[in-house]
Amino acid sequence: MNQPVAAQYLRREFPAPLLDELKAILGSARVSTTAAVREHHGHDESHFQDALPDAVVFPETTEEVAAVVKACAARRFPIIPYGTGTSLEGHILAIHGGVTVDLSRMNHVLAVHADDLDAVVQAGVTRKALNAHIKDTGLFFPIDPGADASIGGMSATRASGTAAVRYGTMKENVLALTVVLADGRIIKTGRRTKKSSAGYDLTRLFVGSEGTLGIITEVTVKLYPQPEAMSAAVCRFPTMVDAANTVIQTIQLGVPIARADFVDPLTVRALNAHSKTTLEELPTVFFEFHGTEAGVKEQAETVQAIAGEHGAQAFQWAVKPEERSKLWQARHDAYFACLQLQPGCRIVSTDVCVPISRLAECLAETERDIRESGRLVPVLGHIGDGNFHLCIIVDPNSPSDIEAAEAMNERLVHRAIAMEGTCTGEHGVGFGKIAFMNEEHGDAIEIMRTLKFSLDPHNLMNPGKVIAA
Amino acid sequence: MNQPVAAQYLRREFPAPLLDELKAILGSARVSTTAAVREHHGHDESHFQDALPDAVVFPETTEEVAAVVKACAARRFPIIPYGTGTSLEGHILAIHGGVTVDLSRMNHVLAVHADDLDAVVQAGVTRKALNAHIKDTGLFFPIDPGADASIGGMSATRASGTAAVRYGTMKENVLALTVVLADGRIIKTGRRTKKSSAGYDLTRLFVGSEGTLGIITEVTVKLYPQPEAMSAAVCRFPTMVDAANTVIQTIQLGVPIARADFVDPLTVRALNAHSKTTLEELPTVFFEFHGTEAGVKEQAETVQAIAGEHGAQAFQWAVKPEERSKLWQARHDAYFACLQLQPGCRIVSTDVCVPISRLAECLAETERDIRESGRLVPVLGHIGDGNFHLCIIVDPNSPSDIEAAEAMNERLVHRAIAMEGTCTGEHGVGFGKIAFMNEEHGDAIEIMRTLKFSLDPHNLMNPGKVIAA
Repeated sequence: MNQPVAAQYLRREFPAPLLDELKAILGSARVSTTAAVREHHGHDESHFQDALPDAVVFPETTEEVAAVVKACAARRFPIIPYGTGTSLEGHILAIHGGVTVDLSRMNHVLAVHADDLDAVVQAGVTRKALNAHIKDTGLFFPIDPGADASIGGMSATRASGTAAVRYGTMKENVLALTVVLADGRIIKTGRRTKKSSAGYDLTRLFVGSEGTLGIITEVTVKLYPQPEAMSAAVCRFPTMVDAANTVIQTIQLGVPIARADFVDPLTVRALNAHSKTTLEELPTVFFEFHGTEAGVKEQAETVQAIAGEHGAQAFQWAVKPEERSKLWQARHDAYFACLQLQPGCRIVSTDVCVPISRLAECLAETERDIRESGRLVPVLGHIGDGNFHLCIIVDPNSPSDIEAAEAMNERLVHRAIAMEGTCTGEHGVGFGKIAFMNEEHGDAIEIMRTLKFSLDPHNLMNPGKVIAA
Repeated sequence: MNQPVAAQYLRREFPAPLLDELKAILGSARVSTTAAVREHHGHDESHFQDALPDAVVFPETTEEVAAVVKACAARRFPIIPYGTGTSLEGHILAIHGGVTVDLSRMNHVLAVHADDLDAVVQAGVTRKALNAHIKDTGLFFPIDPGADASIGGMSATRASGTAAVRYGTMKENVLALTVVLADGRIIKTGRRTKKSSAGYDLTRLFVGSEGTLGIITEVTVKLYPQPEAMSAAVCRFPTMVDAANTVIQTIQLGVPIARADFVDPLTVRALNAHSKTTLEELPTVFFEFHGTEAGVKEQAETVQAIAGEHGAQAFQWAVKPEERSKLWQARHDAYFACLQLQPGCRIVSTDVCVPISRLAECLAETERDIRESGRLVPVLGHIGDGNFHLCIIVDPNSPSDIEAAEAMNERLVHRAIAMEGTCTGEHGVGFGKIAFMNEEHGDAIEIMRTLKFSLDPHNLMNPGKVIAA
């Protein structure tokens, strides 16, 4: 890619003794400076140029993370936490150099409290691994950002995804964290109780802080009883606005839909090609309903009636688990499917969220912008939350292509913010959205900066992300 | 009361010119130093001794609050926000002296976005006033701590109450805040979107900060569609443990009960005497169900079946709105009903929350403690959340009585914390629970202290609350 990411930032020099210190803590086998390992940790799934760390370490315990942080802090050297590398705004790029702390070996489920509907996991446990671990308990962890991200990474970016419309985001689903701070201290941010009024909500401060205030090493998450019944349906609409209005009315009626995901005709075309499905190329909503047998039936009838008023075709059902999985796998493959729309392309992925009353308007204006641009831009999103994405297809070797994509992204963000929206509903800030933070937050950004430097005075924790230095 | 509250704390001297400065900002009519007004603002509903502010001001806008804060800050004089004075841990007592900022004139609903299911209110709007304002929209604000508290105060203490088991606490129901900081700056902490990943969660930092980080002047809250059907029922159990286990199993099955409130036989006796009801004096749970007609019926059947397995009597129903109101009014009057159990008494009210798997055990140990004490101690709570209260009846003129009550409170808090619980599920810290913060949070308390002093370096915002100086 042509983004001159690394060149824009001051890169601190790797302090030579630090390598030996890290090896003394973890042993040589868990400290790497090989090109392959550094390259693997030097990019995420965004379109940004690689920015390699100087070393990568693989701790297995919170105490080891703390020792690594202390060693780096003593040398004033940056520290970047790394989960599965699936972030989309450059969160894990080592733009100032630094030591990447890969948490993938912290992959143990530490406790499952089935009676309390919670589990305590190490940060590197992925959402699918957690669900596999608990599948016999009758419980599940519903947050589903698509990628099989780590629970620590999902916490750090305040992830959400398809099921947030029913189950909320990581903000609502993390009960407590263990965090290693910038000076190596270890804290627990909360307890397993369903609620507490005992002081400042440190849990929520670290959820969404993207590694800039500390490294999340353990997470206590809420679990939910597996619904007695689940069904999914695909529904096609004459226009994007009809689809949006159906979902908006559904929400306003209080129907507890589990998922309501929109894909535009271009995304459908990409999915058909990639997943060998034969979906009709129309604005489409994927619905899912969770509840009792009777409850699911009732929800589906209500939504079908609303959809009918907006000119929708009849629901196409997927009731069996394998049919549902196939349907949602297709939806989750959208990113990769869109990558195949143009040989050799990359995607500039963007993400905004607006109040749902403005969603149809925001989508319509965006559709017009895309049409006028003449570009290939699949649109999809979690419209029950007012959250949608553009997958702007670009030739990675064309500076003008990338410039045009970034301009479209900027127009989208300005449009969303003007409609009382946010520059990112779920992807996070990383450094990709840092330029919009002032526009969105005004003076509040100064408070974020105060908090950042009160907890990380030397700007060592994932520097250059969330808060511009 | 005999608590030597004011005497324990250094009281700063009122800077003489400040009074004129405040009058210049608000006009003389909205600045008071009369004994009656100061006394009214010098106590809450706790058992703690009065601690009067030096002056009380009545701003009507965020800008006026900012000007007041700037004037006080310039003189390094404490500032205490005041909603309706219904807090239970001494939150609004001016223990270091100071200017109390009474927000009751900030009582305007600024906007109702029915399509987005949210409303923007000034901090002084009470929950009942908001619900009266929106009653024709088909929406409601569900958070119900009992008292008709202000939305600003409820945000500041992270309030919850009877309906939290279904709708969450203020943490889940505040979308954004306008806050006046310790130096008079005004910030907005978030936007009206259902979700955002754009930076640190300032909203959640201020929710539950009890006026110690800034003054909340406007709140954007979530609203919910009024359920198609609602019904309430009273159910009596052989023992407290049977009642707890019924609610625990209900939660574990994922039944979306709207309320599940427990009262012990002594509370029932008090309610009967106060509300002229004729409830049988047994461990009792008040249930409420919200949903579609069919959904409510189904939920109720499931819960009745579970209750039956735990030896419960048949449900006694309240389906009509006036019957439901009467039932919940009786429940909400519990505090005042208990005050009548002993002529001239006061209540030392306490509040803990434990993981629900430990609830039955915690209640049983507490019941034993009460029995052994020989004291009059009604027990009640929101057991669907693992949250319960003791109303320890004391003679306010008996130091030994108060000492015994405080010792019982301490034993309860230690018991709850040992069971991975919290020293307060919903009442907040104020200064009443400050002594337990180290035990609960360990090193994390130092981080809370860092945050406090980064935002309020001169300790002017409600000093002596949440964080010990």
